[in-house]
Amino acid sequence: MQQITTSVQLVLAQHCNGTKNGRLFGGQLMAWIDIIGAVAARRYTQSNVTTVCVDNLSFLQPAFLNDTVVQEAVVTWTGRTSLEVRVDSYVERLDGSRELINRAYLVFVALDAEGKPIPVPPFQPETPEESREYAAALSRREIRLSR
Amino acid sequence: MQQITTSVQLVLAQHCNGTKNGRLFGGQLMAWIDIIGAVAARRYTQSNVTTVCVDNLSFLQPAFLNDTVVQEAVVTWTGRTSLEVRVDSYVERLDGSRELINRAYLVFVALDAEGKPIPVPPFQPETPEESREYAAALSRREIRLSR
Amino acid sequence: MQQITTSVQLVLAQHCNGTKNGRLFGGQLMAWIDIIGAVAARRYTQSNVTTVCVDNLSFLQPAFLNDTVVQEAVVTWTGRTSLEVRVDSYVERLDGSRELINRAYLVFVALDAEGKPIPVPPFQPETPEESREYAAALSRREIRLSR
Amino acid sequence: MQQITTSVQLVLAQHCNGTKNGRLFGGQLMAWIDIIGAVAARRYTQSNVTTVCVDNLSFLQPAFLNDTVVQEAVVTWTGRTSLEVRVDSYVERLDGSRELINRAYLVFVALDAEGKPIPVPPFQPETPEESREYAAALSRREIRLSR
Amino acid sequence: MQQITTSVQLVLAQHCNGTKNGRLFGGQLMAWIDIIGAVAARRYTQSNVTTVCVDNLSFLQPAFLNDTVVQEAVVTWTGRTSLEVRVDSYVERLDGSRELINRAYLVFVALDAEGKPIPVPPFQPETPEESREYAAALSRREIRLSR
Amino acid sequence: MQQITTSVQLVLAQHCNGTKNGRLFGGQLMAWIDIIGAVAARRYTQSNVTTVCVDNLSFLQPAFLNDTVVQEAVVTWTGRTSLEVRVDSYVERLDGSRELINRAYLVFVALDAEGKPIPVPPFQPETPEESREYAAALSRREIRLSR
Repeated sequence: MQQITTSVQLVLAQHCNGTKNGRLFGGQLMAWIDIIGAVAARRYTQSNVTTVCVDNLSFLQPAFLNDTVVQEAVVTWTGRTSLEVRVDSYVERLDGSRELINRAYLVFVALDAEGKPIPVPPFQPETPEESREYAAALSRREIRLSR
Repeated sequence: MQQITTSVQLVLAQHCNGTKNGRLFGGQLMAWIDIIGAVAARRYTQSNVTTVCVDNLSFLQPAFLNDTVVQEAVVTWTGRTSLEVRVDSYVERLDGSRELINRAYLVFVALDAEGKPIPVPPFQPETPEESREYAAALSRREIRLSR
Repeated sequence: MQQITTSVQLVLAQHCNGTKNGRLFGGQLMAWIDIIGAVAARRYTQSNVTTVCVDNLSFLQPAFLNDTVVQEAVVTWTGRTSLEVRVDSYVERLDGSRELINRAYLVFVALDAEGKPIPVPPFQPETPEESREYAAALSRREIRLSR
Repeated sequence: MQQITTSVQLVLAQHCNGTKNGRLFGGQLMAWIDIIGAVAARRYTQSNVTTVCVDNLSFLQPAFLNDTVVQEAVVTWTGRTSLEVRVDSYVERLDGSRELINRAYLVFVALDAEGKPIPVPPFQPETPEESREYAAALSRREIRLSR
Repeated sequence: MQQITTSVQLVLAQHCNGTKNGRLFGGQLMAWIDIIGAVAARRYTQSNVTTVCVDNLSFLQPAFLNDTVVQEAVVTWTGRTSLEVRVDSYVERLDGSRELINRAYLVFVALDAEGKPIPVPPFQPETPEESREYAAALSRREIRLSR
Repeated sequence: MQQITTSVQLVLAQHCNGTKNGRLFGGQLMAWIDIIGAVAARRYTQSNVTTVCVDNLSFLQPAFLNDTVVQEAVVTWTGRTSLEVRVDSYVERLDGSRELINRAYLVFVALDAEGKPIPVPPFQPETPEESREYAAALSRREIRLSR
């Protein structure tokens, strides 16, 4: 099974939107998702990457001021020069339990030093969950291409 | 035809990613997209809104340090308490010509003062483009629901 | 009549000053004014610009956390290589009504690719309001020069 | 002679505009000017203050990436509940010499704990320079009132 | 052996200091260190925490624009209501190898919901490295107390 | 006696951590400490500098939203190419009284234009306080070297 890329954040006042009691701004969470997704894609491809698209990013629950946010990113699919990464964002409570607040799928392209796309190593799903995600990624890709 | 919400930005050093010659960070553009999308949704619903999901956000071209970025947001579809907004982001050159660099569809929910979802006025597509987008929004929604 | 440059913002927690109930920090509004003013000056001159001075920037009303801020910028006067831009900032309520919260006049200089000042196309006021602003701009300029 | 309020900053990448070789963004300098001006006004009035207007803020020279910026703020005039503060911003070279890059005059109003305007202690110019600035502040005020 | 808290970052332009070719600003790295240290302390104590001091934070190597920064935090010592956390920051190269760029020891105090200090579960070093760090933490604490 | 480098800040919402009633984020204060420390080191060495380590940075009291923060930096010790700077951070109340909220000792290295370490002018303590700090700096240095 592949390596999971993880990151932690604290929701500070500067990360909140205009809600009175302090709620994480969606644009800030999207920026954090883009960063950890890119690091997971770099680790898999051992190259620089650029974000091509965000395919289905869902805000499931809010996060509030002072929450601990934990993120996990894994590769779900590879094409010739592109790959899909899933980023799950959780609020982690003080007792250690977690609630999923956002799930996002991002597509990156691997780049060489001149910024040209380069082939990525093919991803072989191994666990049942990886196989399920791989199949779902293929169907997301078909929908993208049909547009 | 509906009112278009527009916004302008300059790409400053603080908005750039790690590319040597200065290139707009995708997470920053996503934050700008979330803001203008929310304003368009507020104007249409005359209420507060919260972002529910980003459905298909595509980076088509890069933007670079010092570029003028222009954004336009329009409503494309309404459900009972939710609505879809399309945000187009352009680089505007000094001669006034524009290049589309990102297209994104976001779904918002309208909220009352207590943060409870409230009905939104139904959107009636009027122009051919609005009708095309409305049909596409319906199909995006079906795909979302089927997941 | 000339094109109006417009921009929208949401007042997030990161934009607020030290007031307990969240009030837009004046320095943040000034940064937004500088950006939209520069874009309006770029559009008029079709060149890069640099801010030379801010002549009369008045905070008329506060803006609070979660407010929608709408900005409009127009050219009011041109010299040989410089031009004056007026930026009006409004709070837009959910019912669509607006209140002017800040009016500012900024002077920019048009620059070529090497950063040297270049001539700007002369501005001809057309509407009565444009003529009034043009006359006021001339008097602001005289006061600036006399200092 | 009155106390001078001083502040120092380093121009980091996050403070720069879109110029290729890194140049301090005018909006960032204005935010720094607003902060130090407010501190000088607080010290003089021993109360909270709010910015009422910026009257004449001139960019005289650019500041570049890595420059040391030094700011000095002094009170120049008082009304009944308002006061004017001058903020001078310098680039300080490594040899200790300074160049004035911006001069700004800001008007603040003193506020009590409920945010109501309160009288400020009258400012008595003592040095020749203070007298000159006081006279100039009176003339700036007349021009403001005539608008 | 205890859980390691990990985080990843990309060095964007907004994180760099004034060095011409883009180098991570030390103050930004310290902010990241404070965040991940606090999360590790929260996880260990299952409570809120506040930073009491930074004891020995060493910049060993620079990080540059576009680098991947990986951070790891572990508990090294506990007192009655305080605990020490070590945060190691690495630059991770594209081939997966890492270089330690900063090592920091931070002391946090555990807080209840009213912000009062509360006892923390005693830390029992298990591995040889944990024992070495525990002894070093005791000596750091003695030096702190003697000041 | 040497020149003291001073700086002032206002605690805005963007500087606060996750505490409900707004409290200055420790990472933000550390960034401000790094900046003023570097300016004091530049002034003393008349050269560029880089931060080598933070040796003992103690949070003594919290600062809250809207507080005025005043910082003072002085040189306490010099080696061959390095120097130690003490940064004291205060909350300044409206009546002008101050409370020390943080004391930090930072070590910088002086750099020439190519980024190579260069000798710094030897610091001669003159006042009793400077002599006390110089002796303490020597002992801090011994502890650092023994690690």
